[in-house]
Amino acid sequence: MSGLFVTFEGGEGAGKTTVLKEIQKKLEKTGRPVLATREPGGSYIAEKIREVILDPRHTEMDARTEALLYAAARRQHLVEKVIPHLERGGVVLCDRFVDSSLVYQGFARKIGVEAVRELNMFATEGRLPDITLYFDIDPKEGLERIAANKGREINRLDQESLSFHESVREMYLQLQHQEPERIRLVDAGQTLEKVTDAAWNLLQEKI
Amino acid sequence: MSGLFVTFEGGEGAGKTTVLKEIQKKLEKTGRPVLATREPGGSYIAEKIREVILDPRHTEMDARTEALLYAAARRQHLVEKVIPHLERGGVVLCDRFVDSSLVYQGFARKIGVEAVRELNMFATEGRLPDITLYFDIDPKEGLERIAANKGREINRLDQESLSFHESVREMYLQLQHQEPERIRLVDAGQTLEKVTDAAWNLLQEKI
Repeated sequence: MSGLFVTFEGGEGAGKTTVLKEIQKKLEKTGRPVLATREPGGSYIAEKIREVILDPRHTEMDARTEALLYAAARRQHLVEKVIPHLERGGVVLCDRFVDSSLVYQGFARKIGVEAVRELNMFATEGRLPDITLYFDIDPKEGLERIAANKGREINRLDQESLSFHESVREMYLQLQHQEPERIRLVDAGQTLEKVTDAAWNLLQEKI
Repeated sequence: MSGLFVTFEGGEGAGKTTVLKEIQKKLEKTGRPVLATREPGGSYIAEKIREVILDPRHTEMDARTEALLYAAARRQHLVEKVIPHLERGGVVLCDRFVDSSLVYQGFARKIGVEAVRELNMFATEGRLPDITLYFDIDPKEGLERIAANKGREINRLDQESLSFHESVREMYLQLQHQEPERIRLVDAGQTLEKVTDAAWNLLQEKI
């Protein structure tokens, strides 16, 4: 039995983190070993890097610095957590991966998608997910969901303007168009139950 | 008057940091604005990244993660500190820069010099020092100096084996051979006074 590497992608408020937890529960019931994790973070060193990235006091953070830090956290998380779990035949559910960097740093922050892709090739040595679930939502609706959900911590990304989040969606849709086999679109404008069902059905094709 | 970007490179115990301070004093006497700084670090965010890199508890640190973190700290330091000072016509004396990554991560840790060079091109957008002073010393002598100097904090790099430090010297000498105009060799096996004089004379050619 070989492992399955699943990544969850999407803009703010698309509900991907909530759906990830639902999918985790369903998978655990099947008896398969599941690792639910997130980017950046998931290991001691990677979490330390995450703290540097997301600290709201770091307003002087340069866009390329940010891209390098995400790649560093990704690398560490990949070698310490993801690959060992896959090698044991498990399923890895990872909240954000390379596609997030292409979209956020490469496109929305205008560093260039190809430059950020190369940087991430260095970090991952070319390792890609077996399937990526992209949760698509209108950015305005996503931001409204976040505003309504008082329990959720606000981070630096949430503070960006609406046009930034619209660029994010535009680029995600482009990537999905470029790699339709790996990146599968889930309509995240539905109820949590329906979104979870759609994601679950896409995963069944791979399991 | 345009700025001058000087970097100080060398293995452990070569005395480059001490010489940097001596050069700083001499330059300040000439009235020229001098920024003495170090890699990684020199800005608030970069210092935070430095803490993650050099923490002796981080024994799980992957070599590529380390290279990415150095590049991130370098980027932030470059845009926040180095470039603004150069644009004001000042002299920047920087303890370590890209060559350190080529040597330590690229060669000694076996990631590949060209891969690490590309990564650093991303971080620096191709910005190179005007002159690099390479302080050359026999690694055994350098490590003995460190052992004798109890006041100095021991970091993760000092704990490496002698053969690691020999690889470091080998690669520095290769880089110096490849770029003799930019990288100038200083014999660091002499007294502090003589080493400082040699470094000072090389700088005079550029000032």
